Amino acid sequence: MKHSLIPLLAIALAGFTTTQAQDALPSWNDGPAKQAIVNFVKATTTDSSPQFVPVPERIATFDQDGTLWVEHPMYSQVMYCLERVPALVKEKPELARVAPFSTVLELLHGDRAAMEKLNLADLEKVAVATLTGMSAEQFQAEAKAWLAKAKDPRWKKPFTELTYQPMQEVLRYLRASGYKTFIVTGGGQDFVRVYAEQAYGIPPEQVVGSALGTKYGYDKDGKPFLAKEPKLVLNDNDAGKPEGIHLMIGRRPYAAFGNSTGDQQMLEYTKAGPGARLSMLVLHDDAQREYAYGPAQGLPDTKVGTFPQALYDKAQKEGWTVISMKDDWKRIFAFENK
Amino acid sequence: MKHSLIPLLAIALAGFTTTQAQDALPSWNDGPAKQAIVNFVKATTTDSSPQFVPVPERIATFDQDGTLWVEHPMYSQVMYCLERVPALVKEKPELARVAPFSTVLELLHGDRAAMEKLNLADLEKVAVATLTGMSAEQFQAEAKAWLAKAKDPRWKKPFTELTYQPMQEVLRYLRASGYKTFIVTGGGQDFVRVYAEQAYGIPPEQVVGSALGTKYGYDKDGKPFLAKEPKLVLNDNDAGKPEGIHLMIGRRPYAAFGNSTGDQQMLEYTKAGPGARLSMLVLHDDAQREYAYGPAQGLPDTKVGTFPQALYDKAQKEGWTVISMKDDWKRIFAFENK
Repeated sequence: MKHSLIPLLAIALAGFTTTQAQDALPSWNDGPAKQAIVNFVKATTTDSSPQFVPVPERIATFDQDGTLWVEHPMYSQVMYCLERVPALVKEKPELARVAPFSTVLELLHGDRAAMEKLNLADLEKVAVATLTGMSAEQFQAEAKAWLAKAKDPRWKKPFTELTYQPMQEVLRYLRASGYKTFIVTGGGQDFVRVYAEQAYGIPPEQVVGSALGTKYGYDKDGKPFLAKEPKLVLNDNDAGKPEGIHLMIGRRPYAAFGNSTGDQQMLEYTKAGPGARLSMLVLHDDAQREYAYGPAQGLPDTKVGTFPQALYDKAQKEGWTVISMKDDWKRIFAFENK
Repeated sequence: MKHSLIPLLAIALAGFTTTQAQDALPSWNDGPAKQAIVNFVKATTTDSSPQFVPVPERIATFDQDGTLWVEHPMYSQVMYCLERVPALVKEKPELARVAPFSTVLELLHGDRAAMEKLNLADLEKVAVATLTGMSAEQFQAEAKAWLAKAKDPRWKKPFTELTYQPMQEVLRYLRASGYKTFIVTGGGQDFVRVYAEQAYGIPPEQVVGSALGTKYGYDKDGKPFLAKEPKLVLNDNDAGKPEGIHLMIGRRPYAAFGNSTGDQQMLEYTKAGPGARLSMLVLHDDAQREYAYGPAQGLPDTKVGTFPQALYDKAQKEGWTVISMKDDWKRIFAFENK
């Protein structure tokens, strides 16, 4: 009698653990994506597991735009740069008559066709003009003020409310399991740091992003400050993601999440480590509740957060898990009715 | 009666807190340096204090060489680079006849005069040859193997045992008070990360240092790796320290500790923030128990960890606290008899 109870008890306990863990992800439908996350956490945090990972080594990295929050129709930081132009023109009125700043003003005044006139070099000019030349603290104050009032054009909500509830649950579940969660974004490190703590519970020192340099100097009263410079220190995209992870974190992640070509190398690098590793890609295949774009799986093509078929095929081949927003996510945003 | 007890109780409690806090620093003699640390922690962590700092903002930064461990007669990383030369020559025998590698071999074979022939450009050549060209993981393995067998010439002990016990107590005291402790070193970030967790309880992601870039690539089996490149991404000295803090941490520290000119800007930047801030400098004035060098206060001059009189005077003027190893530290190393 005694012996025959043990396997039963083990099954009961295993069931209990699984149920507990899965409760950490209530916005996920049961399926391979949810199961991959739960299995990974169990494999790396159960003492007796051959794939157990000591707590200090538990590092998980997350792309931001399109992985943790909405990136369509345009990255919020690009919207920030465009919407800073009027303030810039107020300081330097001569810019109002100079492209690309004049074009941005037309766009902001409702001329949507003006967007077509802006190429990548124009956007870079606007970015340099709106992201550098001030102190790091002044930039933080400007970005914070913008985030407090800016609204997404479709949901009419602050951008920081457009984070994906299922991914918030993954962040919390991993942290509750001893993982340190980092953002590793192609977006601007200083920009994302302004809101990452409030939006995701991720402190500034755990945000890795494309970074411009700063220059230490003194104001007229001799008080030191850091001036933001138009010098790229880290281009945190593609190969820049694992390079940035090495620079800023110094350990290979055990889990990495992305949604586009810019995340490929981070997912490769993560998966190439020994033991249990989790590499996941969010596929935007839900035009109704969010957006649908790829062009993988015949979804509409896009320049913002491209997920080509080759990346989809690579994911299948390498054992990465593709998350279907449509099938895997019970709800997208916290503000939706459950 | 009731009322008259309250101030008494407050005094008793304050006394209790002070005694408790001071017990966290048993290797410190009572004096202004110890008091400055205890006062700072009380001011920033007591709920009712007007200078209270929320836990996520509690950041403390520490220089390493000469602040947390011994830097004389020579930085341990320089010794590492020199002692890697024989292995390098084994791989590339032609280097044995080429300066500066031939000079380093003479030095390692006991010809102390050879040291005089090595200038800064020579040391840089040796550093590039021994710190780059391999994968990040290979470098970690090489540095780890060296640290396991290398011994300091005076104490005949592994370098990682030559950390300052009073500073270890400050690290632990600050962490127990909710502070996140970071190393901010002019030394190589990848090198210090190899042992910082074991030596100081500081994980790799909390080590900021001078950093060479890496390049993401694939080996012949298609496995990704990061190659260490001879490209300086961050020179984490002087103004590079606050710049590095902004890049890697993204918040101004509340407390900073250093011991030489390379730390001046970090201490300035820290102290320039609002609220209670602690900037401290270790002065090596104990030739008997460790080393004596300045040239501040008439101590012998040195090129390794220079502490000039101007820095000493600036500390007095700016309200930074100078720690006298001789007067403030009851013992220097953990291995000493108490």
